[in-house]
Amino acid sequence: MSDRHRVVILGGGFGGLYAAQALKHAPLDITLIDRRNYHLFQPLLYQVATGSLSPGEIAAPIRGVLSTQKNTTVLLGEAVDIDPTAKQVSLKDGATVPYDSLIVATGSLVSYFGHEEWKSWAPGLKTVEDATMIRHKILLAFEAAERCTDTTERCTWLTFVIVGAGPTGVELAGALGEIANHTLKHDFRSINPKDARIIIVDGGKRALGAYPEDLSKSAEKQLHNLGTRIRTGVTVTNVDEDGVTLKTPDGEEHIATHTVIWAAGVAVTEFARTLAKKTSAETDRAGHIKVASDLTVPNFPDIYIVGDLALINDKAGKPLPGVAQVAMQTGSYTARAITRKVQGKPPLAPFSYFNKGDLAVIGRAAAVANVFGIHLHGFPAWLVWLFIHLMYIVEFQSRILVLIEWGFLYLTFNRGARLITGVAANKSIGKPEPLENLGE
Amino acid sequence: MSDRHRVVILGGGFGGLYAAQALKHAPLDITLIDRRNYHLFQPLLYQVATGSLSPGEIAAPIRGVLSTQKNTTVLLGEAVDIDPTAKQVSLKDGATVPYDSLIVATGSLVSYFGHEEWKSWAPGLKTVEDATMIRHKILLAFEAAERCTDTTERCTWLTFVIVGAGPTGVELAGALGEIANHTLKHDFRSINPKDARIIIVDGGKRALGAYPEDLSKSAEKQLHNLGTRIRTGVTVTNVDEDGVTLKTPDGEEHIATHTVIWAAGVAVTEFARTLAKKTSAETDRAGHIKVASDLTVPNFPDIYIVGDLALINDKAGKPLPGVAQVAMQTGSYTARAITRKVQGKPPLAPFSYFNKGDLAVIGRAAAVANVFGIHLHGFPAWLVWLFIHLMYIVEFQSRILVLIEWGFLYLTFNRGARLITGVAANKSIGKPEPLENLGE
Repeated sequence: MSDRHRVVILGGGFGGLYAAQALKHAPLDITLIDRRNYHLFQPLLYQVATGSLSPGEIAAPIRGVLSTQKNTTVLLGEAVDIDPTAKQVSLKDGATVPYDSLIVATGSLVSYFGHEEWKSWAPGLKTVEDATMIRHKILLAFEAAERCTDTTERCTWLTFVIVGAGPTGVELAGALGEIANHTLKHDFRSINPKDARIIIVDGGKRALGAYPEDLSKSAEKQLHNLGTRIRTGVTVTNVDEDGVTLKTPDGEEHIATHTVIWAAGVAVTEFARTLAKKTSAETDRAGHIKVASDLTVPNFPDIYIVGDLALINDKAGKPLPGVAQVAMQTGSYTARAITRKVQGKPPLAPFSYFNKGDLAVIGRAAAVANVFGIHLHGFPAWLVWLFIHLMYIVEFQSRILVLIEWGFLYLTFNRGARLITGVAANKSIGKPEPLENLGE
Repeated sequence: MSDRHRVVILGGGFGGLYAAQALKHAPLDITLIDRRNYHLFQPLLYQVATGSLSPGEIAAPIRGVLSTQKNTTVLLGEAVDIDPTAKQVSLKDGATVPYDSLIVATGSLVSYFGHEEWKSWAPGLKTVEDATMIRHKILLAFEAAERCTDTTERCTWLTFVIVGAGPTGVELAGALGEIANHTLKHDFRSINPKDARIIIVDGGKRALGAYPEDLSKSAEKQLHNLGTRIRTGVTVTNVDEDGVTLKTPDGEEHIATHTVIWAAGVAVTEFARTLAKKTSAETDRAGHIKVASDLTVPNFPDIYIVGDLALINDKAGKPLPGVAQVAMQTGSYTARAITRKVQGKPPLAPFSYFNKGDLAVIGRAAAVANVFGIHLHGFPAWLVWLFIHLMYIVEFQSRILVLIEWGFLYLTFNRGARLITGVAANKSIGKPEPLENLGE
C-alpha cells in the first residue's frame, strides 16, 4: 500500500481514457473502472452497424492501451453507488473502492423519451451489441424481402426509418444508402436492393441542426444522391412491429416498416443519477450534471465530471455537445487539475472548450466538415474525416490497418463484415421480431 | 420457370461452396441453402476464439461470393426434412424446394459422446458463436484471477484444459500459450499471465494422432516451449463448474479449472440423420453417411454427400478426415459428376482423394507440416501454413488484408479483437457460469 493520492476513474471512453493517459507520469495511484474490457472508438460504430467493420476493429482492450502505464490498475466492474463523504464508490460485485479524487466519465445511454416500449423495435446505437443487432436487422430485412411474395409486405421490408437527423442518423442513412445502391447490387435474385426506401425523420428544421446551415444543405443534397429522403418537422408518436407513426404539420401519418433505428435522445446512467442525488447536484432533464468552472461537482471539489455526462455551457450559453472532442478535452483538463492540486500548485484557469470543428461522413467521398471555421463538402471533407480518424485510431493503438482496409473496402464497395450471427441467426426470417441483445 | 436441371446444395461450407462455384458455367438452376448468410473459413476459427481475429475477417457473405454467378440463387434457410421419392426438401419455415440433383454438405457438429450436460462448461469450436463464447471465457478467467485474493482459487482460474489433441486442440493450446506468455504480459497488476497452466488431455497415445509420428513429437516439443502440458492416454469422465475428472492409468484424477474447451468428437446434423433414415443409408456411429464410389447415397443416384458428412474410406480402408481439403475435393467432384450426367456423358471415374498434406500451426513461427510427404517443423512449416491460408482466403474473396494484418499482429504480439461482449459482459466476474450462445 502506498500513501500516494488515489485517483479513481469511472469509464474507459474518450473522457476516462484521456484522463488516465494524461496522468501517465504523475506520482499517483490510478484505478480505471469500466464494465467493458475495451475502449470503443464510438465515431465509427455506425460502420459496424452497417457491416463495414468488425467490432474488434474499432475497439482496443483497455488493459492493452494502459499496459505500460505502471501507476494505473484496470478493474473490470460497474460502479453502482457512491458515498461522497466517506469518498468511496461501490461496485456491483460488492467491492468498495476508496478515492482521493474521482473522475466520473460514465457517458450516456439511449433515451426513448419515456417510451421504453419502443426500444425492442427501434434499437439505438451506443454499444457493440447495439451495432451488431442493427446489422442483423438490416441484413435480415433484405433477406425477408427476397423471400417475400406479397408486394406490399416486400415494400415494408425494404423500408428503413432512422429517427434523428443528427450526425449518427445522417451517417447511418448514408451507409444504408450505399449498401442498397452498391454493396448488395448483385446479391439478390427477386429484389433490387436499390428499391429500398431510406427515410430520416426529425423534429427539427434541418439535418445536422447543430452544424452551420450551408453544411446541412450540403449533407441533405449528398444524402439525396444516395436515394435517402429526409422528413423534418415531424415527431414520432409511436413505434411498433408494423412501423412508425408520425405527427406532421398535416396530421398523423404512418410509415409501414419493420426496420427502425433510433438515433435521437440521450440519457445518463443509473450511477450518474445516484451521484447527482447524493451530491444534490443540479441536472438538466436528461440527467447531465451541471459542473463548476473547474469541472467539479459544486461543493465536492474531489469529484470531477467529464465527457457526455457533464453539463457545460459554451460562451454563448449553449450546452457543449456529447462528442469525443469534448470528452477528450475535459478528460485532459481534469488530469492537469488533479496533478496541480497534488503538487500544491495554484488551480488551473477555468475549463474552456476549443472547438476544432464538426464532421459528418455520408458515404464514399461524401461528407461535410467545418474545420476551424472553414466549411468543406464532398471529397475534401471526406479526406479531412479520413485523416482525423486515422490519427485517433493510431493514437489508441487500435489496428493501424483498419483505415487502410476500410479505404480498400470503400473502393470495392465490399462489406465483408455483414454477418448475421448469434440469436438472430436462429430467428425465422420474414417475421418482425424484437431482437435480444447480442454480443460480438 | 425454366426447364433446366435443378441442383439444390445444402450448406455453404467448403463442400457446398466449392460445388456451387464449380457449376458456375453449367446450364443449370442452382439453389444454395444455408442457415447462415456467410461462408466461414473454419481453419482460422481458433484465431477468433483467442482474440486475434474478428469474426468478420474469416467469413465471407455467401451472396457476395456468388453474386456474379447468375445461375445460382442463395436462400437463407434450414433444411429439416426430405422426401427422396418426390425429390424435395422441406425448410424450417415451411417452404419446400424441389430438386433434380441434391448435394448435401451440412458438415458436422460437436459431440459430447452422450454427455450433453458437459456442453455448458466445455464449449466446442464449430461456429462463430462458439468462438466468441470461448474468447469470453478465456478473457474473463484472467480477469477473475486478477480480482481473486484466494491463492487456490486464483490458480483454478489460471488453469485451462483443452480436451482433444487433434489439430484444433493443438492450435488452441498454442494460441493460449502465446496469449499467456506474450500478449497479456504487461496487462495485469496482481497476476502474472505466464503462471497460466494450459493442459491438453487426450485418450490417444500422442498429439496429432493422425499425423506422422515425428511431426507429433515436434508439435509436442513446440507446445512445451510455450508452457503447455500434454496428457495422453487419459479419458474425461466428467466436466462441471469445478473442473475436469480424468481416468488415468493410475486411477482417477481431478483438475480444478473453470475454463474447459472441447476439441474432441463430432456428430452430424439432425437433417443428416433424417436423410440417412429415409434413404436407409448405412452410417458410422457418429452418423456419417456411407456413400457409393461416385459419392451418391446407395440406391439414390440423385443425392450426393460431400465434405464432413460423407463416410469415405481411403485406399488403406481408413475413413478420410473431416478437413477442408476433403470437402473441397468432394464438392468439385460432385459438380463435375452432375454436369456430365446432364450432358449425357459417361460417368466419371470413382472419387479418389488426393492428400496434399497436413498442417497444424502452434504459434508465432511454430508449426508442423506434411506437404506432399515432406515433413516440416517450426518456421518453414509456419511459412507453408501462411502461404496456403493466404491463397484460400484470396480465393474466397474474403478480406485480402487479413493475413497481412494478422502477420502484423503476430509480430507485435497484439490481439486487438480480445473483446468481451454481449451477455458475457453482463455476467459477474469470479463466478463460474455457463455462457449462453453469443453472436458477433
